[in-house]
Amino acid sequence: HQRDKREHTMKKALIASTALVLSAGVAAADVTISGYGRTAVDYQEGRDTEAQMSARVRMNVHATTSTDQGVDFGARLRLQWDQGDAGIDSIAPGQIYVTASGFTVAVGNVGTAYDNAGLLYASEVGLISRSFANSGEFYAYSSKAYGSAAFVDTCDVEEPEVDCGIIAENQTRNRLGASVEYAVDALTARFSYVDPDQTTGSTNEELSVSVDYDWNQIALSAAAVKDGAGLDGNDLFFVGAYYTLAGTDNGVGLSYSDNGSYTDDGTFVDNGKTLVLYGDYVVAPLTTLSAYIANNDSDDNVTDNAFGIGARYDLGGAYLAGSLERGFDEDIRGDFGVRFDF
Amino acid sequence: HQRDKREHTMKKALIASTALVLSAGVAAADVTISGYGRTAVDYQEGRDTEAQMSARVRMNVHATTSTDQGVDFGARLRLQWDQGDAGIDSIAPGQIYVTASGFTVAVGNVGTAYDNAGLLYASEVGLISRSFANSGEFYAYSSKAYGSAAFVDTCDVEEPEVDCGIIAENQTRNRLGASVEYAVDALTARFSYVDPDQTTGSTNEELSVSVDYDWNQIALSAAAVKDGAGLDGNDLFFVGAYYTLAGTDNGVGLSYSDNGSYTDDGTFVDNGKTLVLYGDYVVAPLTTLSAYIANNDSDDNVTDNAFGIGARYDLGGAYLAGSLERGFDEDIRGDFGVRFDF
Amino acid sequence: HQRDKREHTMKKALIASTALVLSAGVAAADVTISGYGRTAVDYQEGRDTEAQMSARVRMNVHATTSTDQGVDFGARLRLQWDQGDAGIDSIAPGQIYVTASGFTVAVGNVGTAYDNAGLLYASEVGLISRSFANSGEFYAYSSKAYGSAAFVDTCDVEEPEVDCGIIAENQTRNRLGASVEYAVDALTARFSYVDPDQTTGSTNEELSVSVDYDWNQIALSAAAVKDGAGLDGNDLFFVGAYYTLAGTDNGVGLSYSDNGSYTDDGTFVDNGKTLVLYGDYVVAPLTTLSAYIANNDSDDNVTDNAFGIGARYDLGGAYLAGSLERGFDEDIRGDFGVRFDF
Repeated sequence: HQRDKREHTMKKALIASTALVLSAGVAAADVTISGYGRTAVDYQEGRDTEAQMSARVRMNVHATTSTDQGVDFGARLRLQWDQGDAGIDSIAPGQIYVTASGFTVAVGNVGTAYDNAGLLYASEVGLISRSFANSGEFYAYSSKAYGSAAFVDTCDVEEPEVDCGIIAENQTRNRLGASVEYAVDALTARFSYVDPDQTTGSTNEELSVSVDYDWNQIALSAAAVKDGAGLDGNDLFFVGAYYTLAGTDNGVGLSYSDNGSYTDDGTFVDNGKTLVLYGDYVVAPLTTLSAYIANNDSDDNVTDNAFGIGARYDLGGAYLAGSLERGFDEDIRGDFGVRFDF
Repeated sequence: HQRDKREHTMKKALIASTALVLSAGVAAADVTISGYGRTAVDYQEGRDTEAQMSARVRMNVHATTSTDQGVDFGARLRLQWDQGDAGIDSIAPGQIYVTASGFTVAVGNVGTAYDNAGLLYASEVGLISRSFANSGEFYAYSSKAYGSAAFVDTCDVEEPEVDCGIIAENQTRNRLGASVEYAVDALTARFSYVDPDQTTGSTNEELSVSVDYDWNQIALSAAAVKDGAGLDGNDLFFVGAYYTLAGTDNGVGLSYSDNGSYTDDGTFVDNGKTLVLYGDYVVAPLTTLSAYIANNDSDDNVTDNAFGIGARYDLGGAYLAGSLERGFDEDIRGDFGVRFDF
Repeated sequence: HQRDKREHTMKKALIASTALVLSAGVAAADVTISGYGRTAVDYQEGRDTEAQMSARVRMNVHATTSTDQGVDFGARLRLQWDQGDAGIDSIAPGQIYVTASGFTVAVGNVGTAYDNAGLLYASEVGLISRSFANSGEFYAYSSKAYGSAAFVDTCDVEEPEVDCGIIAENQTRNRLGASVEYAVDALTARFSYVDPDQTTGSTNEELSVSVDYDWNQIALSAAAVKDGAGLDGNDLFFVGAYYTLAGTDNGVGLSYSDNGSYTDDGTFVDNGKTLVLYGDYVVAPLTTLSAYIANNDSDDNVTDNAFGIGARYDLGGAYLAGSLERGFDEDIRGDFGVRFDF
């Protein structure tokens, strides 16, 4: 039973839900809360307090209904608190979707095709799941309010006791996303569209596509985005492959990405092209070592090579993990902590 | 016990709840989440982008306890996101109620007697459930923070990058509501009281009453409100009747309302009197057509007649619906989309 | 299995949770919502409107996972609305904890050792659970955003229609808490640490300890805090004892506390030392009378003696309660209302 569920909600625990058989329409509705908690020591070379505690509590609220024609409707909200937030100031914007015959169409705060590409984040290590191989600006499912992290210019965050501007949560309040996903056997294809402000015709809309395919021991993933994050001309693409040794959980992957470039407020930003080689090796029961080495050609880099190693120990329902990385600025960061899913 | 509850929350899905039999007092407590998701194309003649996507995710969190004397206590919160919100910036203010012997007394963010009148919104059509027949200012259950939609004057929403005032969420933070409902057989009577600011004695309190009665194939509804929305002299009343053809879901309704008038900041506002004729007809299995024609005598109208037609197709657990309306300003609006309840 | 959980969450209602037996690691995850609703008439002598309605809806969202080694992980969020809030503007910051072998270690928005001392609030009376015997500044579990109640100076709350500063919710957004609790048989020991801003090294960290011990009919409690609420030199301590008459719920308690003193913005604040005698007496089945008399030596007092009496009637799943108190300023306050837990 649990196993079947997992195939769809990998690594998420579900609250048991009653399938209510209503009188006329035979509809089954339920609401589940899943998510995770994690906490870690987070070391970042060069900041005021180099070692700080990091923590996150994420809860996904997921409501679904199935019609008698076998069509599934769902709505999602997310509550997420991160260490450094005064509280959960805003629950994530809502998403509504419908699933039938392998197709899932979603509206609102959608996951984007590029962000959901199967291997995009595969080189990440450590508890906080980070990799210097990932860069570039594009939209993703928003865990908090659209634009909530941005402050109005007149606000001086360092001196909150003086007159302070607001968190400009209205800056992107008219953002509209839509996505389509098609999954059949070993193939998953995705398309997404995000309009930064649907009430005006003046913004650049982001378009993205991605395809994942499993072929024997090899997983393949490709993705592209046009006008990423609504920035004119900020086009990205990604290709990656991961080979798993038969009969093991050991594997090795290789990815290449063009992370886009754009001009914002007169400044030219180039996120460069990244080649990353990474792998995972089960060194002992329940214990996995991972590592990556990434090359990025951006002019802003101090060095063009970044690397990281990580270890993970499975507690059965929770895991300990840690990592050590050196970035393109030659600064070190590392983490060590625990995460559990529910 | 659980069964009785269900009769009241038909078509809503419940998270399965344990009826916990505590040691001494035999109390049963549970928490359920219900609500709906909907999304539609929303066309409004004359605005910048005439066709926009509309969406809503509503979740009602409902906690209840029953004492051994058969008294039910409950608390409610609502999480609601609408397309155009950056996130759920505020969960609705709480409501606390107690039910016994047909009486329900509620405190806090209460539904008001006028807003809950059985036929007040009966002429609505389409997925977004709108009708030009409805106008007038009065309090209702608040799905978001009290006053959250109002910005302080110094804020220019069109230019969020310049210094922007806050959403004046404190403007009505001391609002206090109380309501009583009595339901027995075919009769439901309601009374409500809302004080816009209970900490001062200077605001106008809204009082409202409503009565619904079912008599054979006829549903009757009447309601009145004094100082609606706390506006001095803004008195409204409503009477309506709906006749259902025996053995069918077809019916026809007629309502009359005085939507009140008041002087605000030196400006006289008159919402006029509205007469609305409406009906519903099941044209095919699962398919219902609805229509209304409304007459309003307000001086601000371009025309005194508005009308709308809508269609709805039941998917069993979800439905498709659309509408086309022409308002008192002679502008057209329409919608088409899908909604599901959970 | 479900039963074992219940022994720990007595008097709390659980959303039914599946004991998920995962394939490899035998982990059990569930999410529950518990809390309470209450409403009361709240009388305070000397304020503009002396009698006001008070209300609160509190919901604790609690997610847990157990690993196969018998280690429990958990995450907590709290949603709380109080009469006087425009809505739930912020869900409480998250807490993450792990429990094993009697030890519970928590990170984030933790309960502090001093605030959790077993008898610290034992003299409270009435529905709103208040006692003039309690004073002093120290950190506690935050039910809302860190610092959310504080406005920036430039904001004039009395005139929200003019330019208004923001709720300075960023003032303490980098607060970090950690706590350890050890419970074995009749002993519970706690330690907590709160850094008001972990990103800088310039704030005063609060340290606190407390110990509770049950010895036959006597409960003992002691606690101390250094730099309470991050205020330099604001050290508090507390000792208390409560004696329960064998075979009854009647009892009498005595506590002594030094509530600390500090200099803030050049102003010296002394919360004085408090001695409080209190007791509870079951006068009739389900009916308990409570009373206290407190002596505080602070120079700011009009009188050094405060007292209060309260009554509580158990409805089985809910209770009615009321109180009447006279404070150190010789003003009277009182409450009467109902509360239910779920």
